[in-house]
Amino acid sequence: VTAEQLQHYPPPIADGFRALAASIHGVEAQQVIATNGGDELLRLAVSTFVEPGQAVGVLEPSYSLYRVLADLNQSPAVRVPLAEDWSCPADAARTFNEARAKLVFVTNPHAPSGRLTPVVQLSALAGELDALVVVDEAYVDFVDPDLGHDAVPLVSNHENVLILRTLSKGYSLAGLRFGYGIGAPGIIEPMLTKTRDSYNVGVVGQRLAVAALESRDRAAQTWEAVRRERTRLREALAQLGLDTPPSQSNFLLATVPDWAGHARTLCDALEDRGVLVRHFDQGCLRDKLRITVGTPTDTDRLLGELKTCIAAASPIGAPPEPS
Amino acid sequence: VTAEQLQHYPPPIADGFRALAASIHGVEAQQVIATNGGDELLRLAVSTFVEPGQAVGVLEPSYSLYRVLADLNQSPAVRVPLAEDWSCPADAARTFNEARAKLVFVTNPHAPSGRLTPVVQLSALAGELDALVVVDEAYVDFVDPDLGHDAVPLVSNHENVLILRTLSKGYSLAGLRFGYGIGAPGIIEPMLTKTRDSYNVGVVGQRLAVAALESRDRAAQTWEAVRRERTRLREALAQLGLDTPPSQSNFLLATVPDWAGHARTLCDALEDRGVLVRHFDQGCLRDKLRITVGTPTDTDRLLGELKTCIAAASPIGAPPEPS
Repeated sequence: VTAEQLQHYPPPIADGFRALAASIHGVEAQQVIATNGGDELLRLAVSTFVEPGQAVGVLEPSYSLYRVLADLNQSPAVRVPLAEDWSCPADAARTFNEARAKLVFVTNPHAPSGRLTPVVQLSALAGELDALVVVDEAYVDFVDPDLGHDAVPLVSNHENVLILRTLSKGYSLAGLRFGYGIGAPGIIEPMLTKTRDSYNVGVVGQRLAVAALESRDRAAQTWEAVRRERTRLREALAQLGLDTPPSQSNFLLATVPDWAGHARTLCDALEDRGVLVRHFDQGCLRDKLRITVGTPTDTDRLLGELKTCIAAASPIGAPPEPS
Repeated sequence: VTAEQLQHYPPPIADGFRALAASIHGVEAQQVIATNGGDELLRLAVSTFVEPGQAVGVLEPSYSLYRVLADLNQSPAVRVPLAEDWSCPADAARTFNEARAKLVFVTNPHAPSGRLTPVVQLSALAGELDALVVVDEAYVDFVDPDLGHDAVPLVSNHENVLILRTLSKGYSLAGLRFGYGIGAPGIIEPMLTKTRDSYNVGVVGQRLAVAALESRDRAAQTWEAVRRERTRLREALAQLGLDTPPSQSNFLLATVPDWAGHARTLCDALEDRGVLVRHFDQGCLRDKLRITVGTPTDTDRLLGELKTCIAAASPIGAPPEPS
């Protein structure tokens, strides 16, 4: 990016980026909107399609911003708890419809569990719902390509599906603030022309985003490395007695068994040793830790410190022998 | 900005930038909010402080976005026409108060006239109004420093003043999308914590904005050059028969006299010759052109083409002789 380019207002709707993203995803440019991080897309979806007072549907637990945005819009949040395996309960659509939710957030892969909902189930959900379905794919780049998962074709068959992508996770560009949405033209257009700030993404962001997508083969090597490490970390955690659901994201949600102490205590002890994991002090997440998959060195470090902390916390110092 | 910095989420409220801007303006960091361009600040001001249905006050003509944001907020716009000299009419505050406007936009220097309202008048207006006064200082960097104009102290005496600054004009960084607001902590805080997207400005923007403010002495040389050229252009336009009100901005609003043809026609003719000026097809602006002050070469080019176009358009070919 040159000083000359910085001087001028950026392409207002990021044409270059839209065309590139559209060609990658096999859609038209008019089906893509570029946003100042994925968070802006979430805000635009609510403010464009939900009148104040109309309900917003949320599967819980999930990204806390969904409920913040509902509150800001003076919209009641209809909260449906996920099933124990983090899947969407069969009656969720009915509950959302009965509460007249105008928009439903679905995180896929789910955070913080990492669970992937197959496209066929998303399609069924979109078909049942009388709401706009925002499929938040912030972590989708880490899905195993062997699964052939691709939710984008949904937007051709469902006028009520908006897919969120971001460069913050899979492209390691969280500092840049660049996300985008994919949907039917009828969904993209009002956000683009009505509610969006006229120049919502700067020229630096647009340029780097184009460069990032153009060199996605390089990013894909990182995703593959994350998947390899995810498998190894998951097995090692299981050996330590910490179960995790299968994850298609770049983190694992580990349940801390009773004998290993409280998850919160373990989280703090790890932090004292310079290892950062996330603990959510809410509902079914209280006994769990979200552990981000890092480099092999990160994994070794984490496992070593985890072993030490558990040994210190537990009078047993090891999982009970299988009976 | 390193790849490492791009990987991580940016400082969420741009602490470094806030501290620097605060020290430059002689306020506390908590009185500053950084935004994704000035437009985001305008949106935040409306969405944070004006409930849907409550009125927004606008002095006309002015930046068209004010009314767009009012519409988006489902707020009626109370429109008060500026006086013929582009000053704020004496009864404007009463009109806005009677309409129960919750927020009033004041552009200073005004666009597109370039007129500067002195701080003492802004202070009186803020004192009279039962509304938040958003003083849009997008063009303030071009004000002659000999005037000693500084609206920032207003925010210490008036809880209802929010000042907008941007790096798009004075710092030639429109491509970056970086603006900021200055106000009482009670005004800044709700925008910062409630309505703003969590990471509204990226790390690149934050870094370049800090660098821009740190090297503002260099930018000040450009502002001085603009002022010199503004004076020369204004005199030359007057000699061509095109009057302009005194401008403290980086543009002049020239009235096209009847004998020189229609302003729209002149605007198109100039564009055909590669010279871009702005024509606004509304009310009292219809017979005027907004001419941006450029380099000396730009001025010479403009004046030459303007002379040619006027000669071609006018049967007289010159202003009538003074009687």
